[in-house]
Amino acid sequence: MKIYQNPSEEELKKILTRPFLEQVDLHAIVEEIFDQVALNGDEALKQLTQKFDFASLENLEVTEQEINLASDNLDETLKIAIKEAYKNIYLFHEKQVEEPNKIETTPGVICWRKSVGIEKVGLYIPGGSAPLFSTILMLAIPAKIAKCKEIILCTPCDSSSAVNPAILFTAKLCGITRIFKLGGIQAIAAMTLGTESVPAVYKIFGPGNQYVTAAKLYAQKFKVAIDMPAGPSEVMVVCDENANEKYVASDLLAQAEHGADSQVILVCTNLEKAEKIKRELEIQLNDLPRKKQASLALENSAAIVTSKENIISIVNSYAPEHLILNTNFNESLIDKISNAGSVFIGQYTPESAGDYASGTNHTLPTNGYVKQYSGVSLDSFVKKITFQEISKEGLLNLGKTIEIMASAEGLEAHKNAVSIRLKDL
Amino acid sequence: MKIYQNPSEEELKKILTRPFLEQVDLHAIVEEIFDQVALNGDEALKQLTQKFDFASLENLEVTEQEINLASDNLDETLKIAIKEAYKNIYLFHEKQVEEPNKIETTPGVICWRKSVGIEKVGLYIPGGSAPLFSTILMLAIPAKIAKCKEIILCTPCDSSSAVNPAILFTAKLCGITRIFKLGGIQAIAAMTLGTESVPAVYKIFGPGNQYVTAAKLYAQKFKVAIDMPAGPSEVMVVCDENANEKYVASDLLAQAEHGADSQVILVCTNLEKAEKIKRELEIQLNDLPRKKQASLALENSAAIVTSKENIISIVNSYAPEHLILNTNFNESLIDKISNAGSVFIGQYTPESAGDYASGTNHTLPTNGYVKQYSGVSLDSFVKKITFQEISKEGLLNLGKTIEIMASAEGLEAHKNAVSIRLKDL
Repeated sequence: MKIYQNPSEEELKKILTRPFLEQVDLHAIVEEIFDQVALNGDEALKQLTQKFDFASLENLEVTEQEINLASDNLDETLKIAIKEAYKNIYLFHEKQVEEPNKIETTPGVICWRKSVGIEKVGLYIPGGSAPLFSTILMLAIPAKIAKCKEIILCTPCDSSSAVNPAILFTAKLCGITRIFKLGGIQAIAAMTLGTESVPAVYKIFGPGNQYVTAAKLYAQKFKVAIDMPAGPSEVMVVCDENANEKYVASDLLAQAEHGADSQVILVCTNLEKAEKIKRELEIQLNDLPRKKQASLALENSAAIVTSKENIISIVNSYAPEHLILNTNFNESLIDKISNAGSVFIGQYTPESAGDYASGTNHTLPTNGYVKQYSGVSLDSFVKKITFQEISKEGLLNLGKTIEIMASAEGLEAHKNAVSIRLKDL
Repeated sequence: MKIYQNPSEEELKKILTRPFLEQVDLHAIVEEIFDQVALNGDEALKQLTQKFDFASLENLEVTEQEINLASDNLDETLKIAIKEAYKNIYLFHEKQVEEPNKIETTPGVICWRKSVGIEKVGLYIPGGSAPLFSTILMLAIPAKIAKCKEIILCTPCDSSSAVNPAILFTAKLCGITRIFKLGGIQAIAAMTLGTESVPAVYKIFGPGNQYVTAAKLYAQKFKVAIDMPAGPSEVMVVCDENANEKYVASDLLAQAEHGADSQVILVCTNLEKAEKIKRELEIQLNDLPRKKQASLALENSAAIVTSKENIISIVNSYAPEHLILNTNFNESLIDKISNAGSVFIGQYTPESAGDYASGTNHTLPTNGYVKQYSGVSLDSFVKKITFQEISKEGLLNLGKTIEIMASAEGLEAHKNAVSIRLKDL
């Protein structure tokens, strides 16, 4: 981690610029797989799973028996932990439910908005070395609260056609029973186009590698919505001279272990503290199983030593996915934050709390997109339909206004829809 | 309008399929104009405005004097109408403000969500033959309520460099003072890239022709968000034998006058009534100034005569932008609607009420996108940032759960961020 002391505005801009992500053009392979799935449905999915995951599938769908067996065999301690996280995430997202609120904008004119769950949604959960069962909680819980009618889940199986038991347990806990052994581009193609076994959905959620991301972008051509543009994860930690360097270092490493392209930025008001954190990073790094990934990420990371007054402008200009505030003046910062995905306040609030169990959602925009996008929440699983009901009195009160405006916009048929009614009143 | 009596499921599917919109590939021209604006800024904008709008601009920005003059000279009746609409739209959108709600998910673990206005937004308002000042109300009012810090507006001027006075009056009424005389692709390019005069924004809103739409799609490559995918406007009117055929016909025509590609679908429980509506359409059509556009749209329109029981499945399968319910059994339908943009209930609720003045937003998804997208609302102008603050007690309560889950996902540094703190407690 390189330490920059009081960088100039220009230097700062350079430090905070995210590295350009060279994108391999995956269009051809994505298109080919979509074409195969469109043409041969389940048969294509089986062939592709054989080819990429080395599994011979008889059935694409996980059976009830498989789900129950996995649940039975999963470590009890892990089950309890997942249930605890479930409870918190449910609580937090349940409070996001909006009841319709009828508003009489003019006497006789009643307007309201109603949240309705998106009928069909698909969740993609990566498998392999890191089975992200926590992401199931983050996606399936709001989908259930939103009352989405059809919720399906795709996740890759291993070469023996088995799905990670923690994934199956968590899905079952969330009430998801339609799980397909599908990974990569073919999973996204199946949920977009539909096959004999896999229903087509209206919106696809979930993280994935560059193939999955490219497939999600391509799926939009078929009028399927996606949760958000995906990019490498990132954290900005803000601390002062009072912060515990061990805690700060551990937070930076929790981000760094995601991989070489992870973004890790420290903003510190004190040079000596920044140096202590740097040393502590090296100590903690040595004990990590994912040391290689973390040290690659740290190579691209930066520590900015600056005055208290500059912090907010640095935060809002970088617009981090995760922001940790570990200072004696957190309260003075909170209200001024306009660009951040999720904010962790105080020395006992590590970012991993939000990743797993505090209740907030961990699916957040990266790459500066927090400037205009929110993270996943109940909102992501509903559409808000507006309703209005106008009485005779209401039309008498409002009719003239509509007529005048429609006429001024040159839309006489719009005016006429009012005039023809007013004549009868 | 062709009447289909009790169509089979297969026929129905055909009737409800939206016509394929042949899209001219505008990529080359969009890219060229973006390149010019990137390279030459204001100078490019002036040249392009000369070329496409035949106007020689000295200043791109509308002056305060121009705004005041336009406001002074606008017809008083129109001003009163716009102010009345403003009041209703403000009332409806103001109720969408969400206050942060702190939730203690576990003792000592406090989580909340806060809506923060997107800092910089750009509104595009078409000019020309139909100056859509009503759309300013629909976009600027929620932007102001959201407390977006910078709100700019682009709208084309005429060849004498003048902007429609109703547009200037409405913008001023909404508190928007930065207005640029820019239309088409160059307006979107300016708001995306920024120039000497025009600030770059994070999200672009507003309707437009195929050039504007293509430019908005292209803008996303520069990490700018857009309001929604745009398509031709559409209405589905549901009526029974009790409906007034004149009212129904006027509602269908209000949609049809938008243009040849407008979608107009009638669902009626009674053949005789459908035939009466068809005759009434021909009568009313004759008096319309936009007769040509409306009759072209009617050529592609359909009337489906079906039983009461089939209505909901037809509505939800078509997923109309606008839905008018004009039956004796509206109440029994409302709760079953899952796919519609804005719903108009009862015979005195013409769709034009929502277009102008009832209070709801008229910027809605078309082309079936209501299945997964909402219309514009306050939500469109904010990001929701999550916050969490964990006390010592909170971490003692939740720490173990986080450790177990992180470990099971193979992310030891995530676990360590908790363990290192727990050791001290």
